[in-house]
Amino acid sequence: MKNIKLTIEYDGTNYAGWQRQKNAISIQQVLENAITKLTGEKVEVSGSSRTDSGVHARGFVGNFHTSSSIPGERFKMAINGKLPDDIVIVKSEEVSEDFHARYNSKGKKYSYTILNRRCEPAIGRNYVYHYRGKLNVEAMKEAAVHFIGTHDFEAFKSLGSSVKTTVRTITSLNVYKNDDIVKIEISGDGFLYNMVRIISGTLLFVGIGKIKPEEIPDILLSKNRKRAGKVLPARGLCLEEVYY
Amino acid sequence: MKNIKLTIEYDGTNYAGWQRQKNAISIQQVLENAITKLTGEKVEVSGSSRTDSGVHARGFVGNFHTSSSIPGERFKMAINGKLPDDIVIVKSEEVSEDFHARYNSKGKKYSYTILNRRCEPAIGRNYVYHYRGKLNVEAMKEAAVHFIGTHDFEAFKSLGSSVKTTVRTITSLNVYKNDDIVKIEISGDGFLYNMVRIISGTLLFVGIGKIKPEEIPDILLSKNRKRAGKVLPARGLCLEEVYY
Repeated sequence: MKNIKLTIEYDGTNYAGWQRQKNAISIQQVLENAITKLTGEKVEVSGSSRTDSGVHARGFVGNFHTSSSIPGERFKMAINGKLPDDIVIVKSEEVSEDFHARYNSKGKKYSYTILNRRCEPAIGRNYVYHYRGKLNVEAMKEAAVHFIGTHDFEAFKSLGSSVKTTVRTITSLNVYKNDDIVKIEISGDGFLYNMVRIISGTLLFVGIGKIKPEEIPDILLSKNRKRAGKVLPARGLCLEEVYY
Repeated sequence: MKNIKLTIEYDGTNYAGWQRQKNAISIQQVLENAITKLTGEKVEVSGSSRTDSGVHARGFVGNFHTSSSIPGERFKMAINGKLPDDIVIVKSEEVSEDFHARYNSKGKKYSYTILNRRCEPAIGRNYVYHYRGKLNVEAMKEAAVHFIGTHDFEAFKSLGSSVKTTVRTITSLNVYKNDDIVKIEISGDGFLYNMVRIISGTLLFVGIGKIKPEEIPDILLSKNRKRAGKVLPARGLCLEEVYY
């Protein structure tokens, strides 16, 4: 048996997220079916994380075991030939038998993209969150710094997942402005349920002036979800990279 | 009767172009139906140009006559409420009775976007032409300069449109590279059928090395379609602005 690691880009717009489920089409299901068409084997692709419905990925990682004779690096083209055009294998390689996309992950990088202009977008509308009001990007940058480091992120998670600890380490958090695009990039050792979308929503509130940058340490310490910003929509979120 | 000028952004992916036609859905048809729902009148929206199936626009211009009492600038929000989310009115205003989106146009600006990387894109795939090979962008910039000015563009038009003259003036043509995106921006007094996509295809051939930058003046003089590059796909093309 070979263990194959896949790096996957997908447009999450038309999927109910990564994970296989009963009454909706997931990326996992479409990918597993494509591999089955190719190898004739029933496979399970382990994913680096669950992504929600509508969330995108440029560097999602999955792995699966196969007795196919196809060389590791060839799976990329072979699987792409069986996939719809909103899912693309970027890289495939054979890895050691014990590699697991989720358990071996040491960290992840996400981006959240805000389109900041008056008018709603038609072009690219599935990849951005549209906010029409004025944003103070300098204040957002100031606030971002307070998230970096090891903190209890209890105030920045949605209910619905059970985790042993809500302590996480953010290694970098940057806010960039380029024309009418405000992009948030965040890396860390792991993220709680909706954590990136809530941090982005909190930074948005800072940009609007509803939260001051210097309040962030207090909100972290409060562990109170109500003091942080709202969960921004899925479509602006993209899993950029998984670190091993 | 009022004459209303509309500035329109649209994602052309799911449409058979701007112009109303029998067996396919066009942007013009969807827009005219939305206005009819709003005003109760049957209207015809005159467009600044025909765009082909799959071509996008950020600044398409149309105008229509109405006896509705809605103030000019209010049409924007009112029509947007009746449109699908891939067509957005960016601006609406009342203009003089004799304004015509097509006949009064003094020029246009288009962009053509090439994604230049190994792997096919999933995210944003409808807005770019994907080219995997190496591109010499400096050579493309050098070639671009030769198009500027007034020339006979016979070699850079597809068959299928009858025009009085194939002489056009290009006022600017720039090639930008940003990460794996190569963007071509072109402004001129008017464009022949497929002219922007053929100029872009010719610049691509220059980037690959199939055509030398200094050959462009000769190709223009030859008036020979076969000497220019291929027509690049619609999805990379976007009408950015119409000048009046």
